[in-house]
Amino acid sequence: MNVTSSSSVNFSALGQRAQLPTIARLMSMALESPDVLSLAAGFTDNRTLPVAFVEETVRELSHRVGEPEFLQYGSNQGRAGLRRVVAERLQKEEPAFTHTGELAEKIIVTNGSQQALYLAMQVLCDPGDIVLVDQPSYFVFLEMLVGLGIQTRAIPVTADGKIDSRELGRLLDRLRASGEASRVRAIYFVSYFSNPSGRSLSDVEKNAVAEQLTARSMFIPVLEDAAYRELYFERPEASVSVLGLPAWSPFPRFYLSTLTKPFATGLKIGYGLCTDSEWLAKMAYAKGHHDFGSAHFNQAILETVLRNGAFDRHLAELRPMYAEKCAVLHAGLAVSGLHAAGWRWEIPAGGLYLWLQAPQNLDTGLESDFCRACIAEGVIYVPGELCFGADAPRNFARLSFGVLPPGKLTQAASRFGTVARKFS
Amino acid sequence: MNVTSSSSVNFSALGQRAQLPTIARLMSMALESPDVLSLAAGFTDNRTLPVAFVEETVRELSHRVGEPEFLQYGSNQGRAGLRRVVAERLQKEEPAFTHTGELAEKIIVTNGSQQALYLAMQVLCDPGDIVLVDQPSYFVFLEMLVGLGIQTRAIPVTADGKIDSRELGRLLDRLRASGEASRVRAIYFVSYFSNPSGRSLSDVEKNAVAEQLTARSMFIPVLEDAAYRELYFERPEASVSVLGLPAWSPFPRFYLSTLTKPFATGLKIGYGLCTDSEWLAKMAYAKGHHDFGSAHFNQAILETVLRNGAFDRHLAELRPMYAEKCAVLHAGLAVSGLHAAGWRWEIPAGGLYLWLQAPQNLDTGLESDFCRACIAEGVIYVPGELCFGADAPRNFARLSFGVLPPGKLTQAASRFGTVARKFS
Repeated sequence: MNVTSSSSVNFSALGQRAQLPTIARLMSMALESPDVLSLAAGFTDNRTLPVAFVEETVRELSHRVGEPEFLQYGSNQGRAGLRRVVAERLQKEEPAFTHTGELAEKIIVTNGSQQALYLAMQVLCDPGDIVLVDQPSYFVFLEMLVGLGIQTRAIPVTADGKIDSRELGRLLDRLRASGEASRVRAIYFVSYFSNPSGRSLSDVEKNAVAEQLTARSMFIPVLEDAAYRELYFERPEASVSVLGLPAWSPFPRFYLSTLTKPFATGLKIGYGLCTDSEWLAKMAYAKGHHDFGSAHFNQAILETVLRNGAFDRHLAELRPMYAEKCAVLHAGLAVSGLHAAGWRWEIPAGGLYLWLQAPQNLDTGLESDFCRACIAEGVIYVPGELCFGADAPRNFARLSFGVLPPGKLTQAASRFGTVARKFS
Repeated sequence: MNVTSSSSVNFSALGQRAQLPTIARLMSMALESPDVLSLAAGFTDNRTLPVAFVEETVRELSHRVGEPEFLQYGSNQGRAGLRRVVAERLQKEEPAFTHTGELAEKIIVTNGSQQALYLAMQVLCDPGDIVLVDQPSYFVFLEMLVGLGIQTRAIPVTADGKIDSRELGRLLDRLRASGEASRVRAIYFVSYFSNPSGRSLSDVEKNAVAEQLTARSMFIPVLEDAAYRELYFERPEASVSVLGLPAWSPFPRFYLSTLTKPFATGLKIGYGLCTDSEWLAKMAYAKGHHDFGSAHFNQAILETVLRNGAFDRHLAELRPMYAEKCAVLHAGLAVSGLHAAGWRWEIPAGGLYLWLQAPQNLDTGLESDFCRACIAEGVIYVPGELCFGADAPRNFARLSFGVLPPGKLTQAASRFGTVARKFS
């Protein structure tokens, strides 16, 4: 797309805010370097894509007795059979979650979890409103908020990256004192093997957040983004979601995830479970305006693989592959002398990312010498600054082991290490 | 979904405007009557769905040499190969369309044509802005505009439903006199076998609109919705789109359509071609926030069937089926004495709808005695009032021959006729 400013079109406020995503600038910088290895994209590994499962499922659907409703329109809220199987899985995962009514009726199916986030924000927030976000946070969500004109305040964290509930209390008090508290419309966090940090929030941390809000009677909607929950390496993360934690039960809750990130990203189906029926209905109505329902075909495929076990068989194959790739990237970085160069990171127990902290004074930002040197060396990453709001620390980097095969990961780690040593 | 008003959630302005679609109220009224035949839904006929073509295509994609990129993420703008084949088809369809640069680069792939409409409206219009719309117009678009807080003004028509360019000129003058002209951000029409009217706009009508706008230097963006263009019965509609008409060349143009309405609605892929690169870029950025790209799998399927001819073979089978169903519904209504009861309609040359005009004093609205009597008799339709803005005439009805097989269409027509005779 060549964008010229010759346009005579008058854009809306949203249109004026719509800008080239920062990550796209990174990608076009990288294009100058043809052999660049990408540790930036949060894509999955092509070798892991469930080609045979999808082919078999489409064959099975095609030969089912009855009308081929799977190729017909669906509904705004999503395919009932898919919502039922998702509800059953969630109920098993969250035995402490108590609720009235049919769980499947509380679920909306979306175009990936991204649309679930978008719909939630659209119906909750006007431009100028505030959302509390984890720190670091999912940068595509942060860019979406900028696009919608929504402000963020970061949930304070301690030096080791855990939620600092005392500081959170102080932040909430400041917001009340300044009269901004009424504009705080939601709180958002990626709680399992987070993008970008790879961390999971503990029950203690989640409860502490609920307590700080409850103490101030701020029963704002909470969005828990569990996109990576299924992508653990060895065992599920033990922490309970806001659905199952009693401290969160007075809050309107939207628990959302993707069904296709851990299966086939090209099918793009996500969902959200909402405990507030009016909020859910508003999102479904807004979705009616967006697209009146996600592709029904894709929903039928997901329903089938969730029911017949193919989804779980695929995940069982996938987990050790990502565990291995995580270990390979970690080892490659360690071998390349990154620790000696002053870098630190934790080894995550799931997800697709290593979250690296550079020495305090090293700027890893998009326009930094370090970033340019990496591109020149043939490796790209996501600058950590994208994962924060204003006053972002500039010495973090998100490295994904999602896309590249192990050999390339080692090579990319070596290139990254070469640059890091130069800048140490 | 049970919607209670027990919610403690504060909604945004958009959230407050998000309401149950009117058509959903009709559907739930109809649920009380279990044997109801629906002439309301604009769905396609399950019997026509291309099960074998889709199965074959997925098999072919699955066995292609190389990485299974069709199951991987795509991009905001959409799959390059799909955009190229769509561009080639459009260039053939619109030989008079001159442009600079690669046509495929002017195309964005969307979740059905509905999302193309949504993105266009989002980046062009703020709440309170005005869009000029055809009369009658696509009611899901009108409801979307209400959801976005956008006002409409109807393009005036003559008694026989053609665009009345003199009256349009007067409307534009009134908008200028009242200071509202600067809030008119776009003009929209469904130009081929329209939903709901079944009419196509002639070149003369389209040119007359361009001339009225040009005479007032109102070079506002135009959205031409060609969703039904491929669904002609015997031959393509001869009229040229705004892409090919020289009178429209000074205008920023967005020509949009669906690839799945005439193939498999459950795949939900649409597209738009935009002549203004900045407008297109804004829509792609906004789409990045919605979902960062439509399901890549579905795009790969469409690319394949467009390339290998399966799409066109399917259309060739489909057209006579819909032509027959149109004739059956028409004949059923005629036989049931509707003309004698004072009803009038044209036989369309494509599309999925008959647009019936009832006697002047007969209210066919959602809350009317007539509508209730139809439901009691076991037939539903779309009240014409939904297809207009304010001051809607109340004596129209949209009857779709899309879903029901011929035998059921005859039965539905007979039921409709029974009620119409009672009310004559």
